[in-house]
Amino acid sequence: MTLTALFAAGEGDFAEYEAPLRAAFEACGLDVAVVTEAAPDQVDYIIYAPANPLQDFTPFTRCRAVLSLWAGVERIVGNPTLTQPLARMVDPSLTQGMVEYVTGHVLRYHLGLDRPATDWTPIVPPLAQDRRVGFLGLGELGRACAQALAQLGFQVAGWSRTPREVAGIACHHGDEGLRAVLERSDILVTLLPNTPATANILNADTLAMLPKGARIINPGRGSLVDDTALLAALDSGHIGGATLDVFRIEPLPPEHPYWAHPLVTVTPHIAAATRPETASQVIARNVARVEAGETLLHEVSRKAGY
Amino acid sequence: MTLTALFAAGEGDFAEYEAPLRAAFEACGLDVAVVTEAAPDQVDYIIYAPANPLQDFTPFTRCRAVLSLWAGVERIVGNPTLTQPLARMVDPSLTQGMVEYVTGHVLRYHLGLDRPATDWTPIVPPLAQDRRVGFLGLGELGRACAQALAQLGFQVAGWSRTPREVAGIACHHGDEGLRAVLERSDILVTLLPNTPATANILNADTLAMLPKGARIINPGRGSLVDDTALLAALDSGHIGGATLDVFRIEPLPPEHPYWAHPLVTVTPHIAAATRPETASQVIARNVARVEAGETLLHEVSRKAGY
Repeated sequence: MTLTALFAAGEGDFAEYEAPLRAAFEACGLDVAVVTEAAPDQVDYIIYAPANPLQDFTPFTRCRAVLSLWAGVERIVGNPTLTQPLARMVDPSLTQGMVEYVTGHVLRYHLGLDRPATDWTPIVPPLAQDRRVGFLGLGELGRACAQALAQLGFQVAGWSRTPREVAGIACHHGDEGLRAVLERSDILVTLLPNTPATANILNADTLAMLPKGARIINPGRGSLVDDTALLAALDSGHIGGATLDVFRIEPLPPEHPYWAHPLVTVTPHIAAATRPETASQVIARNVARVEAGETLLHEVSRKAGY
Repeated sequence: MTLTALFAAGEGDFAEYEAPLRAAFEACGLDVAVVTEAAPDQVDYIIYAPANPLQDFTPFTRCRAVLSLWAGVERIVGNPTLTQPLARMVDPSLTQGMVEYVTGHVLRYHLGLDRPATDWTPIVPPLAQDRRVGFLGLGELGRACAQALAQLGFQVAGWSRTPREVAGIACHHGDEGLRAVLERSDILVTLLPNTPATANILNADTLAMLPKGARIINPGRGSLVDDTALLAALDSGHIGGATLDVFRIEPLPPEHPYWAHPLVTVTPHIAAATRPETASQVIARNVARVEAGETLLHEVSRKAGY
């Protein structure tokens, strides 16, 4: 029997995903018609990204799961018409890309790569063992980045809402734990999901807990940062630099002060790009699991919001 | 019995090394007078760096070893008056510093950190698994850097004069092996010692073997690079960038074209700075070995020159 998968994502995405999805389903031994239009009651799975007009999931009565192409699901998880199980994208190449981005920008700050030498004045940076990196968020992405930096010798601590244990990382949680991580972070990386509890977690109060001159890397969510407070902390000299990949409004408007600020590095939401080949394999394997009566992997908790 | 260690290094070095050396000898249970002047026939060990007037080792008849503060020994190994065993500096913090420098500059090229975004045009770099890094030199430093990059997911190959095996690294040797490594290196790191066989190993012929747009990182020795050929290859567009930490003449003269070249990043010989604390521990442990009748660690082969 042929399954029907409705591809509902951004314009142009289908051109990139059509062939990898077909190949991935075939490799899993599944007969799946991947389509961009179908009668709702004939659809078995929805492959979804928010840049799509589909907002009412009610008519998809046969749909067994909605598979997000995005790791962040805040633009779909609160949809009251969505009663089907929802899976986040956990793409190994997305994690790998994030590890490379975070490691590269941490080393950029650590080694002072923004200020190339213009004369023969040796400025020797401290060793990684004397540099403290902190993570807010110890999910899939935070853990992988924290461990890569610990492997390179950095002193790494991390904070999460609920208690976590990660080998080689000093783990903290709760309000007191947040303060403990902020107070010791020369470089802070924010990799929390976008939930009501994490909105503006970097605000005037928490920025003030960081050591003077601390640098911030935010490849997580734009909502984590109170932009006005961050700009003020940069201008006062308390924060030494910020590298931002995600923003409340994307594309970041050309007139936004982040673009021109000498201490801010903007990257255009590239830290964890989903690669069609690997993402298609993740989706096909998850469909195969459900068809075999197994549980959906990476299912989103409606209560937690991620 | 008190041993006498003559400290013969650069002016000002003694202020940095005196306390760490005394502490390290004491920690090894050795009674050592560390001095900057002594009757030659009373000296048991010489702690040496080339920036010192001592050139005639003949009168040091009791000296049991010369311990270099530098990893590179080309300015002492050919000294015909040196008949005492000579040890290179193999400082774990020097290796660690080199790993951080090489990893940081490889990621800088890999992620395109020299060209920060000025608008919202997403340029997604390839993953490390699709980037080929090559090493010329698989000694202590080359191996450590190659393995750190392999750990991050890069495709790493290496070349050495004599055959070597390094876990996770495609190892090559000899003339054919040199071509094989050059032809597949998007980013090339040179970490060879300075010997007659390695002089100008990067010349017009070998630079032409690299893929178009390849980037070069040389934290090894200035003598490895034919500077005129490198500048020509940068100007022709064949080589896409060079990060150079070591030079034939240091400090690099202000008028040298490397300083102003838009594709060249100069760092002032900082890739592997010796840290007095850890270097002193290495020296004290080596002296303790010799006093206990054991072999000297990291002894230099006069024939190979390193």
